[in-house]
Amino acid sequence: MTSLTLALDAMGGDHGPLVTVPAALQALKSNPSLKIILIGNQADIDPLISHADSTVLNRIERIHTTEIVTMGDRPVHALRTRKNSSMRLALEQVRDGKAAACISAGNTGALMAMSKVLLKTLPGIDRPALVSCLPTVSGKPVYLLDLGANVACDSETLFQFAVMGSVLCEAINKNPTPKVALLNVGIEEIKGNDQVQQAGQILQHTEQLNYIGFVEGDEIYTGNVDVIVCDGFVGNITLKTSEGIAKLLVHQLKRGLNSGFFVRFLSKLISPRIQAVLSKMNPDHYNGASLIGLRGIVVKSHGNADEAAYLQAINLAATEAKRRLPEMINDRLESILLDINS
Amino acid sequence: MTSLTLALDAMGGDHGPLVTVPAALQALKSNPSLKIILIGNQADIDPLISHADSTVLNRIERIHTTEIVTMGDRPVHALRTRKNSSMRLALEQVRDGKAAACISAGNTGALMAMSKVLLKTLPGIDRPALVSCLPTVSGKPVYLLDLGANVACDSETLFQFAVMGSVLCEAINKNPTPKVALLNVGIEEIKGNDQVQQAGQILQHTEQLNYIGFVEGDEIYTGNVDVIVCDGFVGNITLKTSEGIAKLLVHQLKRGLNSGFFVRFLSKLISPRIQAVLSKMNPDHYNGASLIGLRGIVVKSHGNADEAAYLQAINLAATEAKRRLPEMINDRLESILLDINS
Repeated sequence: MTSLTLALDAMGGDHGPLVTVPAALQALKSNPSLKIILIGNQADIDPLISHADSTVLNRIERIHTTEIVTMGDRPVHALRTRKNSSMRLALEQVRDGKAAACISAGNTGALMAMSKVLLKTLPGIDRPALVSCLPTVSGKPVYLLDLGANVACDSETLFQFAVMGSVLCEAINKNPTPKVALLNVGIEEIKGNDQVQQAGQILQHTEQLNYIGFVEGDEIYTGNVDVIVCDGFVGNITLKTSEGIAKLLVHQLKRGLNSGFFVRFLSKLISPRIQAVLSKMNPDHYNGASLIGLRGIVVKSHGNADEAAYLQAINLAATEAKRRLPEMINDRLESILLDINS
Repeated sequence: MTSLTLALDAMGGDHGPLVTVPAALQALKSNPSLKIILIGNQADIDPLISHADSTVLNRIERIHTTEIVTMGDRPVHALRTRKNSSMRLALEQVRDGKAAACISAGNTGALMAMSKVLLKTLPGIDRPALVSCLPTVSGKPVYLLDLGANVACDSETLFQFAVMGSVLCEAINKNPTPKVALLNVGIEEIKGNDQVQQAGQILQHTEQLNYIGFVEGDEIYTGNVDVIVCDGFVGNITLKTSEGIAKLLVHQLKRGLNSGFFVRFLSKLISPRIQAVLSKMNPDHYNGASLIGLRGIVVKSHGNADEAAYLQAINLAATEAKRRLPEMINDRLESILLDINS
């Protein structure tokens, strides 16, 4: 059994070690080949692991630091001044080959900037992308990228995102021919801005990808497509809008079921079922956005993730590490670029 | 009592006269000062109005044409060849001062292209914008623009949209100081692409608008803001994404409430209430997107609107005509531009 080591920025996120450490213990308990490096303030971390049994404790390494990246730190500032932060030290474990992947629930901008500088992008990739997996009507998840790592993207970058998203879906979901689409304002060839149209032209001639064309926003959640590509400006707004409308629907539903004695009484009885549905729609249940295109694995957890959600992010990092995602993307990209240039 | 005349593209939409004509009769019945010009094939329209009583019939004018703009027509093609289409004739009624506003449920791209050419934009407005009203948690609707009339917008265009959206909200919702925001990937000043950042700078110096800064996608549906501005690429995808996730939630909820006898039995009992909530969230209930920035009033109905939804679009057009929306936007824009240049 090969062991796998993950580096955790234990201080990142709204709840810091109170969430990251119990989730790490859970992950270690359920996966005997896993090792975890907990990076952060030992005064906060140690009391949380003291009760763990030795089979788990043996697989924990701790790196002590009191410095953190705050949520208000600008990326450039974090990069220049937070040299001993838990986030940076966690990324350095990956850079130095001491960990196969890094997980952080901290400041997204700082994480992206540090990841790019410390880990570097893969050859042929200009910019890393933030990608996440979303629920769909068909039950089959969809990968959406970029979610905000790059606010403006040219067609070449969108093309690279399409390749990376496709390989990710192949690697994680074992889908040999993921359907890849570009997010656009219409499905006709003439629709959209220049970047999207040009990216569509490149993708149409990329035989190694299962490119199906343009899709509109309402296709994201149908499950008809496996990978949807857009720039980070559109992706971020799309994701946040989805959270917003989900909250609106839940609000309306609660209000609708809370008026009139009979309706209120009956809806109380089925409320666990309604809660179960709504909690499935909670973004935390799809926790873990991957920063892909780097020479190492970085997973970003929601800042307000709870223990179960943070565990998901850890498991995602472990899966990507086992499948050797960066190497897969690299191989695939090389082969596609050779194909296009030949 | 001043009378108001509206021109209806009776043939537009998935259901054509079967929806547009009954909705027109409804509007005429409930508003005795309204007149409607029904434009389309008399063979289809006449049987649908034959039963109406004379107080309604007296206020209907018909313009016969068998030509239509199809959903597949490219805007330029429609503009060049559909000279006698019901859509074009309806717009010409507005251009020629015979109607105060035009309503169509037909091909959006063709409607925008024809509107711009036939009605022209207001002085100082480069491009018309498509704007719609969305539901929010607070119960107060929000105006989102542009929804797809312009896939790429510079900062000046976004600024013009902000002015137009604000005046629309003032005119329709009688809100004297609507809160106006730019849709962005973060609320900090440094966030976003060049267009949004530059538009933010212009708006910060526009004292006549209640500009509150950047908002993220999850703010659209809270009701904290009255007018949200973005380019048509982002706006269209945002709107379609909202429809997609709403459908996903409804699907999950139905599935969750349809398993297990007890839950199924109870949820059947409250299903009218759940239906009522969901139907409120149906985009048709917020029917009627206005094409603003033109020297005339054009309202676009959803293609698949039913009678009640199409009636909403007619009522919206009537309200905009009564409030003389184009003149209001023109006056306001002039005054703001004078203020900025002084």
